[in-house]
Amino acid sequence: MRLRNKPWAERVIVENPQIVEPEPRKWRGKWNEIFGNNHPIHVEVGTGKGRFVTRLGEAHPEWNVIGVEKYDSVIITGVERLQENPQQNVRLLKEDVTELTEFFAPNEIDRLYINFTDPWPKNRHAKRRLTHEGYLKQYKEVLKETGEIHMKTDNQGLFEYSLESLSQFGFKLKNICLDLHKSDIQGNIMTEYEERYNKRGMKIYRVEAHL
Amino acid sequence: MRLRNKPWAERVIVENPQIVEPEPRKWRGKWNEIFGNNHPIHVEVGTGKGRFVTRLGEAHPEWNVIGVEKYDSVIITGVERLQENPQQNVRLLKEDVTELTEFFAPNEIDRLYINFTDPWPKNRHAKRRLTHEGYLKQYKEVLKETGEIHMKTDNQGLFEYSLESLSQFGFKLKNICLDLHKSDIQGNIMTEYEERYNKRGMKIYRVEAHL
Repeated sequence: MRLRNKPWAERVIVENPQIVEPEPRKWRGKWNEIFGNNHPIHVEVGTGKGRFVTRLGEAHPEWNVIGVEKYDSVIITGVERLQENPQQNVRLLKEDVTELTEFFAPNEIDRLYINFTDPWPKNRHAKRRLTHEGYLKQYKEVLKETGEIHMKTDNQGLFEYSLESLSQFGFKLKNICLDLHKSDIQGNIMTEYEERYNKRGMKIYRVEAHL
Repeated sequence: MRLRNKPWAERVIVENPQIVEPEPRKWRGKWNEIFGNNHPIHVEVGTGKGRFVTRLGEAHPEWNVIGVEKYDSVIITGVERLQENPQQNVRLLKEDVTELTEFFAPNEIDRLYINFTDPWPKNRHAKRRLTHEGYLKQYKEVLKETGEIHMKTDNQGLFEYSLESLSQFGFKLKNICLDLHKSDIQGNIMTEYEERYNKRGMKIYRVEAHL
């Protein structure tokens, strides 16, 4: 993702604590209190400009949706979306996914989404891929036993790597699509990237993983 | 595969017991005696016209290679190949893969190959796919604990199904390729189908699975 410098972003984020939770570590193990209900918690890691989480929250008022994104200049678009169209069941965290277990307790999350994340194609950067074993360990910790990971990407290399990494780690795979938009998968919510890639006729790969 | 009637095929098969073993059930658990050594046993299920097994045997004299194919009119081409170019480490079985455990004992096979088998695209025919759970149970029985399944296909639907079926059954996946001929996988041996599909620029999918 291209990062544009947006000097005003930090201020807007701080001024909207009802959208970007400023102290996520405080809520570890009790996110239900923030949302005021016991609905399932769905988390997108690397949430980018927040279109997926806002649409997901809109389509599923019976779920609580949290998007984790570390860059001010990117998450700010999600903040603006939620300013225009407030959603009680959606929160953003301006945090690094490497610290996921600091703000989610074991068995707290029902579903994790990994959508169109950086493929880090060089082998020496494999550890940075959000489906690397190091991340999977964290996901396993915060996911419920019945929890799932839903992953989408347009990147063939990342998808091949991720299927192998998930499988070798001990996740079982299901609903694998090698061409999502020609499949019969229902209820797909497109990300910004996905819409662009789809218009260009590019294939989208998708997998669900569970323990 | 289109089946042509070849009335002479049955006779040629019977007349070449050193190529097509006439009593495979007799050798269950002691295929090493037929080959006269303790080399690893590699088996291709649905071996078709036998090009893959003959090339595999040629490339790997340190392996014993067995191809299983039920149709006279198809396996006959493999018999002709081996008549022209005899290979001590290759045998064909004119048998149905559904009966695999009748002619191989538990832990007898080092590697199973499933190459370009019938995709049986209709859901009601799923049981006939050679990666259906029913077959995987048999493969697990005859494979060594360290054994592997290597699968290739050009069929997207069969590949998606097979990844899921293998994973759900408990196999772990590795070396997944969504475009084999553009990957860096070494030592690939092309089947007849594969060469034809590759010339047309079609993608070949490949996966290795282990317990």
